[in-house]
Amino acid sequence: MALKKEIIKSLKGKDLICTQDWSKEELDAVLELAHEMKANRFGHKYADCLHKKTFFMFFYNPSVRTRQSFECALTDLGGHAQFLEPKAMRLKTKTSAGEIVKDAGEVMSRYAQGLGIRILEDAIEKYGQGEELLREYAQWCSMPVISMAHDKYHPCQSLADMQGLQEHMKTTNMKGKKILVHWGYSTLVRSWCSVQGSMLLNSRYGMDVTVAHPPGFDLDPEVMETCRKNAAASGGKFTITEDLDKAYEGADVVYSRHWMSPKRYSLEKEEEKKLSEPFKNWRCTAERMKKTNNAYFIHPMPVDRGNEVDDEVADSPRSIIVDIASNRLHAQKAILALTMGDLD
Amino acid sequence: MALKKEIIKSLKGKDLICTQDWSKEELDAVLELAHEMKANRFGHKYADCLHKKTFFMFFYNPSVRTRQSFECALTDLGGHAQFLEPKAMRLKTKTSAGEIVKDAGEVMSRYAQGLGIRILEDAIEKYGQGEELLREYAQWCSMPVISMAHDKYHPCQSLADMQGLQEHMKTTNMKGKKILVHWGYSTLVRSWCSVQGSMLLNSRYGMDVTVAHPPGFDLDPEVMETCRKNAAASGGKFTITEDLDKAYEGADVVYSRHWMSPKRYSLEKEEEKKLSEPFKNWRCTAERMKKTNNAYFIHPMPVDRGNEVDDEVADSPRSIIVDIASNRLHAQKAILALTMGDLD
Amino acid sequence: MALKKEIIKSLKGKDLICTQDWSKEELDAVLELAHEMKANRFGHKYADCLHKKTFFMFFYNPSVRTRQSFECALTDLGGHAQFLEPKAMRLKTKTSAGEIVKDAGEVMSRYAQGLGIRILEDAIEKYGQGEELLREYAQWCSMPVISMAHDKYHPCQSLADMQGLQEHMKTTNMKGKKILVHWGYSTLVRSWCSVQGSMLLNSRYGMDVTVAHPPGFDLDPEVMETCRKNAAASGGKFTITEDLDKAYEGADVVYSRHWMSPKRYSLEKEEEKKLSEPFKNWRCTAERMKKTNNAYFIHPMPVDRGNEVDDEVADSPRSIIVDIASNRLHAQKAILALTMGDLD
Repeated sequence: MALKKEIIKSLKGKDLICTQDWSKEELDAVLELAHEMKANRFGHKYADCLHKKTFFMFFYNPSVRTRQSFECALTDLGGHAQFLEPKAMRLKTKTSAGEIVKDAGEVMSRYAQGLGIRILEDAIEKYGQGEELLREYAQWCSMPVISMAHDKYHPCQSLADMQGLQEHMKTTNMKGKKILVHWGYSTLVRSWCSVQGSMLLNSRYGMDVTVAHPPGFDLDPEVMETCRKNAAASGGKFTITEDLDKAYEGADVVYSRHWMSPKRYSLEKEEEKKLSEPFKNWRCTAERMKKTNNAYFIHPMPVDRGNEVDDEVADSPRSIIVDIASNRLHAQKAILALTMGDLD
Repeated sequence: MALKKEIIKSLKGKDLICTQDWSKEELDAVLELAHEMKANRFGHKYADCLHKKTFFMFFYNPSVRTRQSFECALTDLGGHAQFLEPKAMRLKTKTSAGEIVKDAGEVMSRYAQGLGIRILEDAIEKYGQGEELLREYAQWCSMPVISMAHDKYHPCQSLADMQGLQEHMKTTNMKGKKILVHWGYSTLVRSWCSVQGSMLLNSRYGMDVTVAHPPGFDLDPEVMETCRKNAAASGGKFTITEDLDKAYEGADVVYSRHWMSPKRYSLEKEEEKKLSEPFKNWRCTAERMKKTNNAYFIHPMPVDRGNEVDDEVADSPRSIIVDIASNRLHAQKAILALTMGDLD
Repeated sequence: MALKKEIIKSLKGKDLICTQDWSKEELDAVLELAHEMKANRFGHKYADCLHKKTFFMFFYNPSVRTRQSFECALTDLGGHAQFLEPKAMRLKTKTSAGEIVKDAGEVMSRYAQGLGIRILEDAIEKYGQGEELLREYAQWCSMPVISMAHDKYHPCQSLADMQGLQEHMKTTNMKGKKILVHWGYSTLVRSWCSVQGSMLLNSRYGMDVTVAHPPGFDLDPEVMETCRKNAAASGGKFTITEDLDKAYEGADVVYSRHWMSPKRYSLEKEEEKKLSEPFKNWRCTAERMKKTNNAYFIHPMPVDRGNEVDDEVADSPRSIIVDIASNRLHAQKAILALTMGDLD
């Protein structure tokens, strides 16, 4: 199926900071192209659409998979990803001299055709600052600005998740499919971006989203409110519960993953870890999976096996974690092609 | 206009450590090609002249813009820039075992087709050592060695500046144009290379160059002497003054930028910063700009707004800082094409 | 000479952790292709065989030459090398949470077409751990895993050495050629991988290998035993001696290089250095070279001149160190083409 010309036009140059900024039709176009590109990795008609184009990658926080998948995406499409060290870029702050984002963004837009930014809690002082920085870059850059995961959202991961669900469920119609997103125990203190991003997108697509977490591990209430509105608009449901076992009942998809508490921005990391300790039984087990509708197990990886999930589940035929991780490549290729490429 | 065959031949394999090492005709060729490549970024007839060629980038000091623009230049021209960490290269010193530059240079010349080096005051013990290292590499490398900014000069920046002046003044004849290069207050302690390199090139091109700085902020007297000789040969003028306000009168171009004192190599950074404090009024203001001949404002960026220059000037229509920063890409593409490329 | 179809088939996807894992015929194919690719660097019929393919490079230990030569190899062949920081990859250990190699390897195999790993003594706790990690990755990766030097072997260096000997001796038949590999004094504490890898390969090829080192600098006894078996099978000889001067007699090749003692894994580096001090006269000198059969001098570089070898030898016409270092590029191109490329 060919992409509509209007969609190609509307996405060229568009930032992707949160999937909420994109229409359902635009998101569908990404997923459609991602499926196509996965089916025909090097032979797709857009396989050279980023020929000689440069994508700057600013990693305020390190990453393995995001770096690998974005850099591969550029190579696949004939372009080049520059791995940059933001620490070398002295931006002006309240207390120190430096360059303003306007100047940096305007110049970088003369060099590159796209900019990716990853900025998580360790690199900021309070929740929302990462998003602010992305939006400030987006304001001044004439090239598209793509979130490679920030404090609030991780839109590329969300789209890779959705691509995986669509391919395994063999449908693009997700209405009524029940997904359980639940907090899982781990000593790896995890960001909110993957789970929040996933809920936002899944509720857009009409899924029944249940979020389960122990007391004290609430996510951003504004994002939760947006999920509720998404569900109301899409005909889905959005529920938050502390009853983990009940939440497993009838699930089509289980997403078990640690996330930090809202206190993380004011607590030392070791103190934050202690908050999780009472909830070691918050784990995706084979026993719990029996209550589901033969659910798929998903996770953005890396997985903390034995804590977030048992090996028995992670290695089962219903675990599609590797497929979803591989979709990071394909979904990102589709996003980059649509926002940076010449697709005419 | 096609480049002369003799110029193409003379520049192939040539090092660029200081613009003084190149003839006026060679520098003209760079500027001509830079203008052409800017006008036709991906469609120029030499757009693939570095196909599969490798350019090693040794950053002894970090950089954002230089890294970005060089790496983009290689991508644009079909080649690849390797971002290398010289700290991994243990060179022999007086006090420690290691490899000699001869061995390193000979081997690297077998791998790559060009070598860029950035080395500034933080990575050396005394002024001139960076230049020495570049010249030593140039001695042993059969590939061209290009300065990506060193303690003495920044030839790529100088050529990007000149490209910007030529495009905005709509002429390649710079004779008699008055440029004021003046010290500006900042707590960012800046290198000499950009300003010294600029004066050298501008005096070659017959401009009237006025350098204004507070007492104690003299630049390299040998470079100043070369500028004087350049001016004498080109029919321009070269003047050094401490009277900032008078220096603004009639200027066609104002270049306001902090630079460190000659004491920097023996002082702690915090002590060096104190030397600038008495001169906070050395700033490019809208008021001062009124005395000029409707001058262009230039700066190699990043700009320390509010210190080196007021926002009102930096954001005015006569500020061409972003254009000049973008010329880093185009001037470097021309330099790399001419020194590394197969242009026949 | 065209490569046999069976060889092309058997090498596609094959790991290279130790040359012992490859048949003599497979090793011959690498050398044959390396010679061809050196003779026709950008015009060889396989010059684009890695078009858009990605090679991940995991440097647990820094390196200049290995990085440069691998990244150039990918560029030469139309592919792309990703320089990755393993420190960003939190692998599960006995004492800390993290990802298991199975998960990491499976996902990475979906992105890239090859994986290189460099891991030496500074990044591990005991001898053999680096090899274990490579073998674990090889178990889970569907792409080939290539050693870029690890605690035990450095197969790419070994093949580059052999390529150099073959080109200078103008024969691929190394039977009966005498190579002396001897410990040389240095304060640079060196790994075992280059010398062990070289002995293994040279004994496969029927050379007479003499290893000379001072007391206390024994290499891995299992590797020495394999060398003995190789020699027995190939019709060569394998001898270990502490009599350096006698060992020079009649040598066709001299390889002088420092290596650490077996105590290195339990000693502080400064303590380890002291162990070498009594043996400062273990040096390749012009005087000693006179006893040889006009031997070639080889070394994997960087050379510690004045310690491991005198300038007079390193700069002599019989020194082929730069040629061998350049062969890192060509041998690696052959290895990558054969294991990752589509050569049909």
